[in-house]
Amino acid sequence: MQPFEVHILGCGSALPTARHLPSAQVVNLRGKLLLIDCGEGVQLAWRHTGLSWQNITHVLLSHAHGDHVFGLPGLLSTMGLLGRTAPLFIHGPSNLQTFVEFLRGHFLPDIGYEIHYQALDPKEHTMFFEDRSMEIWTLPLQHRVPCCGYLIKEKPGLPHIRREMIDFYQVPTWAINRIKAGDDWQTPDGQLVPHSLLTTPPDPVRSYAYCSDTMPVGELAEWCKDVTLMYHEATYASSEGELAQKYGHSTAAQAALTAKNARARRLLIGHYSARYSDESVLLQEAQNIFPATLLAQERQRITL
Amino acid sequence: MQPFEVHILGCGSALPTARHLPSAQVVNLRGKLLLIDCGEGVQLAWRHTGLSWQNITHVLLSHAHGDHVFGLPGLLSTMGLLGRTAPLFIHGPSNLQTFVEFLRGHFLPDIGYEIHYQALDPKEHTMFFEDRSMEIWTLPLQHRVPCCGYLIKEKPGLPHIRREMIDFYQVPTWAINRIKAGDDWQTPDGQLVPHSLLTTPPDPVRSYAYCSDTMPVGELAEWCKDVTLMYHEATYASSEGELAQKYGHSTAAQAALTAKNARARRLLIGHYSARYSDESVLLQEAQNIFPATLLAQERQRITL
Repeated sequence: MQPFEVHILGCGSALPTARHLPSAQVVNLRGKLLLIDCGEGVQLAWRHTGLSWQNITHVLLSHAHGDHVFGLPGLLSTMGLLGRTAPLFIHGPSNLQTFVEFLRGHFLPDIGYEIHYQALDPKEHTMFFEDRSMEIWTLPLQHRVPCCGYLIKEKPGLPHIRREMIDFYQVPTWAINRIKAGDDWQTPDGQLVPHSLLTTPPDPVRSYAYCSDTMPVGELAEWCKDVTLMYHEATYASSEGELAQKYGHSTAAQAALTAKNARARRLLIGHYSARYSDESVLLQEAQNIFPATLLAQERQRITL
Repeated sequence: MQPFEVHILGCGSALPTARHLPSAQVVNLRGKLLLIDCGEGVQLAWRHTGLSWQNITHVLLSHAHGDHVFGLPGLLSTMGLLGRTAPLFIHGPSNLQTFVEFLRGHFLPDIGYEIHYQALDPKEHTMFFEDRSMEIWTLPLQHRVPCCGYLIKEKPGLPHIRREMIDFYQVPTWAINRIKAGDDWQTPDGQLVPHSLLTTPPDPVRSYAYCSDTMPVGELAEWCKDVTLMYHEATYASSEGELAQKYGHSTAAQAALTAKNARARRLLIGHYSARYSDESVLLQEAQNIFPATLLAQERQRITL
C-alpha cells in the first residue's frame, strides 16, 4: 500500500510544558507532505520524522492562535535558506493571511520561492484542493476565533494485477497498465478475458480528519462518516467540562462521542491542557466511549 | 558578590542544526533579568536556567532577522497565559517595533501586561537605560540590516564593612548603613573614626558587551574598554573570510582582535555557521589572538 501516515510533531496546548510541544502534524500521503498547524518548535520536532521539509507542498492552518502558528516564521525562513524554489501553498482562515504577508514583507524579502495563501471560509464544509492522490475538505469548527479542521481523503488507487492470471494468459508487459486502468484482454486466438478476472480491487481508500481546537460539533459525525483516523482535540477531562465550554474546547468524552457517531476506525486525541501531567485520565475517559482511542505523543507515527 | 551572570539559551546562526538553537541569552544582574535576542526555542532552552521568566524586565533585540526574534511571539504569549501583570520593556531597532505591535494586535489581544517598545537608533552609542544597578548602552554594529549591540555596565556597589573594626569601636547596628553610604563614625567619647578605616572598597564593577551579528567595528574596542566579558559573533573561520564580509559577519580571528583591542577580560564567541560540526577550529583561531576565549554553548552559565 502507498504510504498514508500521520506524524505528530506537537500535541500540547497553549501553555508550554516539558512534556509537549504545541500543535503540529505532518501527513505523508503517497510521498506528498502536508503540514497541519505549525506550533513553535516544529523544526526541532521535524528531525525525528526522517522526512525532508522541502517536500512540504501544502500547509493547512486551523486558526490564528499562537500555539498553532508560531513555528511558521522560522519554518518559512529556513525553507528559504535551504534554497527552496518550489511554491508553497498555505491554506487557512483569512486573518492568518495578514500574518503570512507580514512575515513575507518584513522577514523574508529574499526567499527564492513563492508563497500562495488561500483564505478559506471556516464556516463552509467544502473541497478546496484536489489532485490525483487526494481531496482536502474544510471542516467547520467552533472555537473562540474562526477555526477550520481538515479532512484529507485519499482517491482510489488502481486495481492490483493477479500475477497468476497474467502468466496463464501470457499477457505481455506493455498491456499491464491498460488492464490496470480498466481494459479487458483479448488473447491472440480471440478470447476475451474480462478485466475483473485479471485484477483484484484497489486498496480501500483511507481518510484522515484533523479536528483542531473546537467545542463538540454535531455535523462532524456526518462530514467524517467512516473516516479511517480522526484526530480530535481533547483538552480537558469531563471534570473540567465548564472550562472546556468557556474556552471553546472539548473533553475527552466529547471527542470520543464524535468519533463514535462518525463510525471512525480509530480516534487520536491531543491538545492536552498543561494541567495533566499524565494523560491516562483522558485516554480512559475516551476509551470508555470509543475503545479504539490513542493518545497523541510527539515522535509518534500512525499508519492509516 | 551580587550575581552578574550570562546564560546561553542559543548560540547558532540562522540555519537550524541539531547542535544549536538560534541566538538568545539571558543576563541576570542582581536578580534582574535581561533577555538579549530571542530566537525560536527560547522557551525550551529557558528551562535549564532555573530562572523565572516572569522576572524578565527588559528584552534587548539586536536586529530584525528571524534567528534573533522568532521566539518572541511565543514568549510574549506565554507570559500572558501565566498571568504576567508587570510591564515589559522591549528595546531594539525601530523596524522591530512594527513586529511587536503586529503581534500585540493580532495574537495578544487579551494579555494582562503592557508592552513598552523603545525604538533605539542603532547608529548611536548612547546610554538608554539606567537604574540603581546598571546602565545599558547601545553599541552600533555593521550588518546587512540596522543592528545594535548592548553594553551592560554594573554600577558600583557599597563598600564592605570591616567587621573587626565595627566590633572594636562598638558601632551600633543602626549606624552600619550610613557608614556604608559614606559616613564617618564618632565614638561616644568624641573620637572621629574615618569611613575608610571602617570599610573596604566595593567590589570592582563588571560589564558585559553583547556584540551581535556584525562585521568588525573598530570603535567597539573603545566603547567596550576593559569590559569583563565580551560576547562577539564569530560566524566563520578566517578561511571563509569572504563569506563573512559578504553577509556582514565576522571571523573568529576578527572577534578575537576586537576583544584584544578592547582589553576585555574574557571573550565568548558564538553564532556559529551551520557548516561547523565542531567549533574547535573557531576556538583555536580566536585563542591564537586572544587566549581567554570561550566557546558559547547552550545551557552554559558564565559568571562575571
